[in-house]
Amino acid sequence: MTVRLVDWADEEGARFGRSLYGSSAASGYFDVDQMAKLQDRDGVSLADALLKVGVTLADAPQAQAELKNAAAYLELHIEQGPVLEGLGLPLGAVVGTVGVERHTITFHGQAAHSGSTPMNVRRDAFLAAATFGAEIYSIAERHGGVCTIGSVKTLPGIVTSVVETCEITLDQRHLDAEKLAAMWQDAHAAATRFAEEGGCTVTFADLWKIEPIPFDSELIAACEASILEVTPTSYRLPSGPLHDAAEVARAGVPTVMLFVQSLRGISHNKIEDTLEEHLELCVQALDRLADKTIRFILS
Amino acid sequence: MTVRLVDWADEEGARFGRSLYGSSAASGYFDVDQMAKLQDRDGVSLADALLKVGVTLADAPQAQAELKNAAAYLELHIEQGPVLEGLGLPLGAVVGTVGVERHTITFHGQAAHSGSTPMNVRRDAFLAAATFGAEIYSIAERHGGVCTIGSVKTLPGIVTSVVETCEITLDQRHLDAEKLAAMWQDAHAAATRFAEEGGCTVTFADLWKIEPIPFDSELIAACEASILEVTPTSYRLPSGPLHDAAEVARAGVPTVMLFVQSLRGISHNKIEDTLEEHLELCVQALDRLADKTIRFILS
Repeated sequence: MTVRLVDWADEEGARFGRSLYGSSAASGYFDVDQMAKLQDRDGVSLADALLKVGVTLADAPQAQAELKNAAAYLELHIEQGPVLEGLGLPLGAVVGTVGVERHTITFHGQAAHSGSTPMNVRRDAFLAAATFGAEIYSIAERHGGVCTIGSVKTLPGIVTSVVETCEITLDQRHLDAEKLAAMWQDAHAAATRFAEEGGCTVTFADLWKIEPIPFDSELIAACEASILEVTPTSYRLPSGPLHDAAEVARAGVPTVMLFVQSLRGISHNKIEDTLEEHLELCVQALDRLADKTIRFILS
Repeated sequence: MTVRLVDWADEEGARFGRSLYGSSAASGYFDVDQMAKLQDRDGVSLADALLKVGVTLADAPQAQAELKNAAAYLELHIEQGPVLEGLGLPLGAVVGTVGVERHTITFHGQAAHSGSTPMNVRRDAFLAAATFGAEIYSIAERHGGVCTIGSVKTLPGIVTSVVETCEITLDQRHLDAEKLAAMWQDAHAAATRFAEEGGCTVTFADLWKIEPIPFDSELIAACEASILEVTPTSYRLPSGPLHDAAEVARAGVPTVMLFVQSLRGISHNKIEDTLEEHLELCVQALDRLADKTIRFILS
């Protein structure tokens, strides 16, 4: 029985837009050819950036050997959301990671002078995007998932012209694969409808997707039992953000995550924080969970 | 009696965001201190860019001397809009330039993880901007003017985060000064309301403004008469875009403009075009108008 600590490479993917570099290399969900195409905003390729620090991109899939004999995988993380704080609970057992559909949607209208073009003849790409921007709240509510427009770019993007091209990113997440598919279908239909109503056209490009990944039911139960040994109440919740645990789980290794409360639910921001007393509790619970997991494996 | 042809400097203002450089220097509506603050997107100041071509910014107001004895000012321009084409007319007499209110509106929300943040607790700056983006069409219709959101910027602007800051530009135009003021008042109130409804705040910054500038009624009549000498029908219309003529008019020089049809109403775009037969007609009409103007001055 060996306990290994893993420091996964580039979970966030901020520079090249591709999350879970290290864990996907280990899980086998790593397409070398696709990764070779990635560039940062300055045009530097991922392969060249890796070479500079002595890493060869094509060797990444060798990491699969590391998971070969893995009996279980545990991951502790801040919640990065407001659910536990809203319930007044320090810790939660994570039942799995939600599925993600990520797309770029580009509305194409017609640039026109802001002073000389009557409102009723405009083909305003931003109007189509704006109407769609409000609609995603209805789509998310209807299916019980989340939808986010995180980036909006306008061309020509000048004060004196109606927007010709408006490119937005849409990120949709759900724990249920069918409902996730329905959310994307609704978004696709709504974007098409709003484009048509405004005399525009719309094009779609896939950015990334991953199916919902459930964690191991016995380990979820063990996680909950561990939480209850250090606090009076536990809570089961899905993870909206992705984690390296999702890659390990889909490689077939029994996996669970333990969440600790995030203050104000805020993450990816300099005011991200967790109470020190909650940090102590989560380390205690992880220790109990590791014990239970080892006993479970040996049994 | 001298006829002078003027080639105004930098009417468009594309590089430094300030239109009508040359004509405002001549009209006296040129604030040297304010102009000295302007920079292009690379941080080069207008003053330095001018020095490089041998022009001293502070000397610009000397151009006022050039208008001292001006008796009238005529300007021929493409319409840059779809009105004349819609009416099937080649030429129109311009009654004046509309007033412009130009502002930056910034919605401030809270960045939050796209996967972990329930829809109902989001403070989504883009949602506020998007709702406002649809509302400007109602505002324009209510007052009979035009409103344009030409540029939208999102921060942090990444696919995995709710938008924290959304900055838009709003350009509003009307021939009636009171209605223009009411349009801006309505926009200000709507942006404030949508920000509040979405848990956001909003700040406003003035970009630029100019009052509506009517042209000279006798010259408008002369322009119409000239058009009728070369085509069967004339039409009076305001100019939505600004022109150097507006600066000359507000310096007190009797002014009029002659418009020629733009194909598809498109301008500031590589497909901007005007029929050759219409170009011939507009030059003929301008010639007649110049004749009439000289006779009018001498009478």
